[in-house]
Amino acid sequence: MPELRQNIITREWVVIATERAKRPDEFIKKRPARPLVPSFDPACPFCVGNEQMTRRESYRVTDGNHWRVRVVLNKFPALSPDGDRVRRSDGIYRSMTGVGVHEVVIEHPRHDITAALMSPADVLVILQAYRQRYEVLRKDPRIEAVIIFKNHGEGAGTSLQHPHTQIAATPIVPTQIRRRLDEAVRYFDETGECVFCQTLRQELRARERIVYENASFVAFIPYAALSPFHLWIFPRRHMSSFDAVMDGELEHLATAMRTVLAKLHRGLGDPDYNFSVRSIPVRTGPTDYFHWYVAIVPRVTKAAGFEIGSGMFINTALPEASAEFLRSVDVD
Amino acid sequence: MPELRQNIITREWVVIATERAKRPDEFIKKRPARPLVPSFDPACPFCVGNEQMTRRESYRVTDGNHWRVRVVLNKFPALSPDGDRVRRSDGIYRSMTGVGVHEVVIEHPRHDITAALMSPADVLVILQAYRQRYEVLRKDPRIEAVIIFKNHGEGAGTSLQHPHTQIAATPIVPTQIRRRLDEAVRYFDETGECVFCQTLRQELRARERIVYENASFVAFIPYAALSPFHLWIFPRRHMSSFDAVMDGELEHLATAMRTVLAKLHRGLGDPDYNFSVRSIPVRTGPTDYFHWYVAIVPRVTKAAGFEIGSGMFINTALPEASAEFLRSVDVD
Repeated sequence: MPELRQNIITREWVVIATERAKRPDEFIKKRPARPLVPSFDPACPFCVGNEQMTRRESYRVTDGNHWRVRVVLNKFPALSPDGDRVRRSDGIYRSMTGVGVHEVVIEHPRHDITAALMSPADVLVILQAYRQRYEVLRKDPRIEAVIIFKNHGEGAGTSLQHPHTQIAATPIVPTQIRRRLDEAVRYFDETGECVFCQTLRQELRARERIVYENASFVAFIPYAALSPFHLWIFPRRHMSSFDAVMDGELEHLATAMRTVLAKLHRGLGDPDYNFSVRSIPVRTGPTDYFHWYVAIVPRVTKAAGFEIGSGMFINTALPEASAEFLRSVDVD
Repeated sequence: MPELRQNIITREWVVIATERAKRPDEFIKKRPARPLVPSFDPACPFCVGNEQMTRRESYRVTDGNHWRVRVVLNKFPALSPDGDRVRRSDGIYRSMTGVGVHEVVIEHPRHDITAALMSPADVLVILQAYRQRYEVLRKDPRIEAVIIFKNHGEGAGTSLQHPHTQIAATPIVPTQIRRRLDEAVRYFDETGECVFCQTLRQELRARERIVYENASFVAFIPYAALSPFHLWIFPRRHMSSFDAVMDGELEHLATAMRTVLAKLHRGLGDPDYNFSVRSIPVRTGPTDYFHWYVAIVPRVTKAAGFEIGSGMFINTALPEASAEFLRSVDVD
């Protein structure tokens, strides 16, 4: 019989298709290997030498004469950096000017690399860029939330090969974040505890779903994972906002991210994936109830019709089996 | 400047990309036409003569010696029809046995047809099947919600060509539905009005986003449509549960569904789409605050990375322009 499991962070129920669950190795990508890509593409706006093809640069890390990471305005921004927040109403409807900032973090000078294959030091430089931009963007009085997210591969919504992350600073709190916050407040009301800290404690006790851990971070498959190899990386220390992460912790996050992404890359054949840093809305101060984390969603199955229609996810992998598989993938 | 609009039913904000909005005709499908399909496929489990290939039949409409519509158990059900609801807890986690019913409505004997090309009378027979199954399934004491949904085309999550709809009777209320209910209650608390009735009144006054209307139903593009040509069909009469629909109304719904789907088919080149009947959970009696409706989501754009990462949708079409375009598509 299938098992329903509730995601305690979002209260969503997931069908774990225990009976027709696949073995972890059945999710290894069968599609043809990604085409070989050059380390430099003269047409790529993110490649070295093409810096004039990008819009306003807000951040750069250099190493001698070369840049290592750049942050620029998105060429096709979803939100406009100019103007003020103006709310309008039309009867029962509400609208607002689409102000905000939509940036791109160009992660590396090389066109053909991906975080899974970088050194932890390279990943650290990228995470430092995230943190610096987060700190700056949150000060803009028009901004309510700063969302850092990455799409790797076409199945995850990108067609740009050059490794990059997006940062969206939005003038409203996206409903997805507001709902996590509401649930976290409710949990705190009932128990006096942070639901994320509690989850981490239970995972560390059970040890069934942990994929990787170090002094500051724990990566695990959620109990009610939405899809095969869905992963969370939680900081051990309770912090609500991503930019509260300290230098030493950021180094540990770089190692954790790089290790987990390398395990996915090696174990599953470089799957497409999305990740997102889920942080508290910027106008909500440090709280006892919300705890930032990283969510990684490999795109190893197609979102099937059942999910789209019913709003309930079906996971055809057992979270415990997925975790065991990823633990066993060796990465240097 | 882009415009943010709030979906008053879900409270989700959508970015309407007014500046880089496309013209409606730019969404016409450019991919190669669907391959020609035979009217009968000997390998198709839903084709006439292959009835023994399907699981338990729960409903059939016949016309002389031939069936017109059949409802059968899904061969690969997400939920198991046998057993009881048993909740378990493991520390802070909650799970439940995956009991429920997952059926398939085989809409027509012909393999190569689709609702957009059927007669309204054929569509009515399908809707009658939905209603009958809804009435029966809701009586099962293990069931909390009955969700009727359709995936048309591979981009919408199906690979089965033969026209069919799915019905999922779930042992919990999916979070997606619970949240709509919560928002509707809150709106009613504040205003003493049904948010759906209010929306309908405002749409009928504005007349900017209406695509089709008849005596019982109004089809329109939502003010904060999540994606191009996202459509809602609301009953004019306030009813919470789909099975409260009366015979005469069901005829009008058949005409409305068929007209709207034909407009999409003809106007946009047979796009992939999903639709879902959003009804109240079955243990919640008729209420003043919830109003069932049909949501149709054509898959004319790929869910882009911004949506996946940020949880905010970007619609690259103006709802008013999409509505005007669909109004102008003639269907017999």
